[in-house]
Amino acid sequence: MNAFELITTRRSTRKYLDRPLEKEKLDAIIEAGRHAPSGGNSQTTHFIAITNREILDKLAIMVKEEFAKWEITPGMYRSMEKTIRNARADKLIFHYNAPALIITANKKDYTNNMADCACALENMMLMANALDLGSCWINQLKWLSNAGKFNEFFHSLGMAEDELIYGAVSVGYADTADGLPHRNPLERTGNPVTYIG
Amino acid sequence: MNAFELITTRRSTRKYLDRPLEKEKLDAIIEAGRHAPSGGNSQTTHFIAITNREILDKLAIMVKEEFAKWEITPGMYRSMEKTIRNARADKLIFHYNAPALIITANKKDYTNNMADCACALENMMLMANALDLGSCWINQLKWLSNAGKFNEFFHSLGMAEDELIYGAVSVGYADTADGLPHRNPLERTGNPVTYIG
Repeated sequence: MNAFELITTRRSTRKYLDRPLEKEKLDAIIEAGRHAPSGGNSQTTHFIAITNREILDKLAIMVKEEFAKWEITPGMYRSMEKTIRNARADKLIFHYNAPALIITANKKDYTNNMADCACALENMMLMANALDLGSCWINQLKWLSNAGKFNEFFHSLGMAEDELIYGAVSVGYADTADGLPHRNPLERTGNPVTYIG
Repeated sequence: MNAFELITTRRSTRKYLDRPLEKEKLDAIIEAGRHAPSGGNSQTTHFIAITNREILDKLAIMVKEEFAKWEITPGMYRSMEKTIRNARADKLIFHYNAPALIITANKKDYTNNMADCACALENMMLMANALDLGSCWINQLKWLSNAGKFNEFFHSLGMAEDELIYGAVSVGYADTADGLPHRNPLERTGNPVTYIG
């Protein structure tokens, strides 16, 4: 796969096989994330990779229970609203039962925290695609980073006191007939381009 | 170049040849950016690609003059402090005289604006690397997005009223002996990894 194919065939995978992710693939994905650029080469993105089924299950329930309590407000971000509706309907599994969830935390007082984590997450999704794995950007843990008990939980897993979560990615084998992420053409309806030549 | 090499050999290039960037390469880079994921597939990232030398030169002067007025405050982000010092010393050319500057704007009231732009920028830097071009993340225009006159200037170039700039990337041929970005090994000193297996 050349670079253009690699980038343009990445898709969000929301259904995974019940099949563990090999450690060497997980490592390659994290290493891709660690090579993302960072502001002033600060390299402060902290990768927390969870493959422990018990912890993933526990976290899914915690997240569902929390969002079930949230209110839907007018003009709310559509994906957040959907998360709340699914939680209330007892249908939310925020990590889609993927075998691996890689969380990116960063210093909360660092101005490039979100940007650095996003670059790392994009690198990891591309690396997953190169390995014929599915992946999906996960926003829920970021949305919960103001809810004290989630920070406490992540501190217990190794997140430092001066860090917060800015994003996460689920990774695993896609639950499709061929085991590959759906790579059908994507309709680009938006993303306008203005040329000033 | 395989995906892992592509990702791990990307470097920040801060010196460019005075050589125009071919339109088809610019287009491939922007197309890579347009294929970045976006929150709820909103595809609202707006790419403003400037290759017009006169506008690039004018912008460089505007940016230098603005930062020369900024104060350095204790605990300030190191890269921002450096920008101000360079501006005061009349040495700041924020886009490093690259032949192309691609700016990513997004809806200012959209919660994933920074994340989406960062993914698009990372894709573009990787695509540039695949094309043996140098690139560099540019933060200065984001820092100026609260300074009214810069928004006015970008509105005049086509940025919508409800958009702000969240990042930019300079792209061009690296000014090195072989014309390639320096791809020497990068010392990874940071980016800790915590495994919860």
